[in-house]
Amino acid sequence: MSENSFSDNSFIDKLLKGDKRTVSRSISIVEHGNSRARDLLKSIYSKTGSAYRIGLTGPPGAGKSTLTNQLTKYYRNLGKTVAVIAVDPTSPFTGGALLGDRVRMSEIGSDEGVFIRSMATRGSLGGLSKTASDAADVLDAAGYDVILFETVGVGQSELDIARTADTTLVVLVPESGDSIQAMKAGLMEIADLFVMNKSDRPGADSAIIALQTMLMMKSHDETSWLPRIIKSIATENSGIEDIAREIESHRQYLLSNDSFQKKRELNSRIRIKEIVEDQIRSEIWTKERETSLNNSLEKVVLGRISPYHLAEDIIEEYKSQFE
Amino acid sequence: MSENSFSDNSFIDKLLKGDKRTVSRSISIVEHGNSRARDLLKSIYSKTGSAYRIGLTGPPGAGKSTLTNQLTKYYRNLGKTVAVIAVDPTSPFTGGALLGDRVRMSEIGSDEGVFIRSMATRGSLGGLSKTASDAADVLDAAGYDVILFETVGVGQSELDIARTADTTLVVLVPESGDSIQAMKAGLMEIADLFVMNKSDRPGADSAIIALQTMLMMKSHDETSWLPRIIKSIATENSGIEDIAREIESHRQYLLSNDSFQKKRELNSRIRIKEIVEDQIRSEIWTKERETSLNNSLEKVVLGRISPYHLAEDIIEEYKSQFE
Repeated sequence: MSENSFSDNSFIDKLLKGDKRTVSRSISIVEHGNSRARDLLKSIYSKTGSAYRIGLTGPPGAGKSTLTNQLTKYYRNLGKTVAVIAVDPTSPFTGGALLGDRVRMSEIGSDEGVFIRSMATRGSLGGLSKTASDAADVLDAAGYDVILFETVGVGQSELDIARTADTTLVVLVPESGDSIQAMKAGLMEIADLFVMNKSDRPGADSAIIALQTMLMMKSHDETSWLPRIIKSIATENSGIEDIAREIESHRQYLLSNDSFQKKRELNSRIRIKEIVEDQIRSEIWTKERETSLNNSLEKVVLGRISPYHLAEDIIEEYKSQFE
Repeated sequence: MSENSFSDNSFIDKLLKGDKRTVSRSISIVEHGNSRARDLLKSIYSKTGSAYRIGLTGPPGAGKSTLTNQLTKYYRNLGKTVAVIAVDPTSPFTGGALLGDRVRMSEIGSDEGVFIRSMATRGSLGGLSKTASDAADVLDAAGYDVILFETVGVGQSELDIARTADTTLVVLVPESGDSIQAMKAGLMEIADLFVMNKSDRPGADSAIIALQTMLMMKSHDETSWLPRIIKSIATENSGIEDIAREIESHRQYLLSNDSFQKKRELNSRIRIKEIVEDQIRSEIWTKERETSLNNSLEKVVLGRISPYHLAEDIIEEYKSQFE
């Protein structure tokens, strides 16, 4: 097989049959985001659309990994295949994988119907939701029934996950007060359901009441979806069935009107814009233009040329090649 | 005066003289990021470079606002003028201002030598460091000696602040364990000094030892700057002088070799790239292309055309206008 194109279809065939090694290599390809990634994603796109995409987000230490494991086991018991994408947006410089990975692997990683993958976003701007969507397309085409995205909710990343998922779970713990305060507006907008995990801890009930109060203040009409708050103790497998049932309710709600289509259209819109912008960005920042920019920085810092003048020069030069 | 150009220099003159209303209006202009903003920033750029830019970041509840207030008062007592930019990256949907603002205003806002401004980033990709740099240029040109940027450290935002600042403070509290864990790599890279605030709380010393251990593991050579950990109780004004002294040490370190120039060059590089990309982005997403994209989304979701094909069409059409 040629490594540089997908004209030989054996690679695609293996991917569509769900061959794990090919799935894994495909995700590595889409992570690179180059022309090869685009070719792959174009080839498989018509085979996507069947998988249900679930996002889990919340502050550090809320138990998202354990919950992801339990939901995976739950769906496996229903006979569904499950893919997990754990996104770590918090180590932009080192690009490290999530701590929970080794634990996860030993528990569910040996199951043939489960695929697990960590992705680090390496501080790339606007990269998370695009790369996560790309990886989800690969897993969708490979035949996984359920795709679980897990990420630490820290500002941008939970929005990116919500833009990729059909149903978004916001996972909290009784002590999440500060984090809720900080992320309030964002969390309220993206949550299709809240999970109050570690609900046997002190303060769980008052935390639920506080959250409920915040939810009540949010404007909504009779037809809009109202996020519920589900209690769980993920480490004891308690509440998992309730969560899965609520995810199913939300899915049924989306399907009962045109919300499902609308939500996926909105997500696609954001995704296409990111693809366009990524592509243009990579075209602008050729090695030559990077070098030319670097050579002009001293003049900028010394105040001889403004960043805006220099930017204009670069843009003009970029456009001139299409003349 | 014409509202649409700066050919009449009275607006610029008032800005350079530090007229607060003009400063405030100028920041509103640069927040819009349009051609008028670019004109303004080009006009004033040669007058920038004197202000020292300090960034404060850390998890929610670490006491950053209080610390910012105390540092402001400290620098005011030295006769320096101070501008504060409080960036709130956590409310991307509502774009709300920081809670601490009213408190802040009543305490230091009435001081003629202090300027305070909140900025919400509204979930815009890559916008924070550019807008913060633009606002800093305005304040720099207006003659403020010290510019303090304050932001909640949630993934991307603390990196953006570090890219704007000469010296970056990471503010923690003894209970920040989880957050440190989550943000570890990023915080280690950006911190020029750590502040352990609320250091009278239990666990402060062990938190400092844990942080110190992490710092020791970081590779460094004899000439590189080693971030120190300073204890403070901002609400009691304790430790503020130590922090200011350490900021000054860092500044002297930067000036003693070519680090200051190098750091500003690096920051300028990132800024110029953002300016270029923002400009191109706004050129691509005309109303016509947005509409055309929206009209094609149904086909994408139904699997008839892939996001990558549609993106290619948009890019080709964009480039064709320069032919």
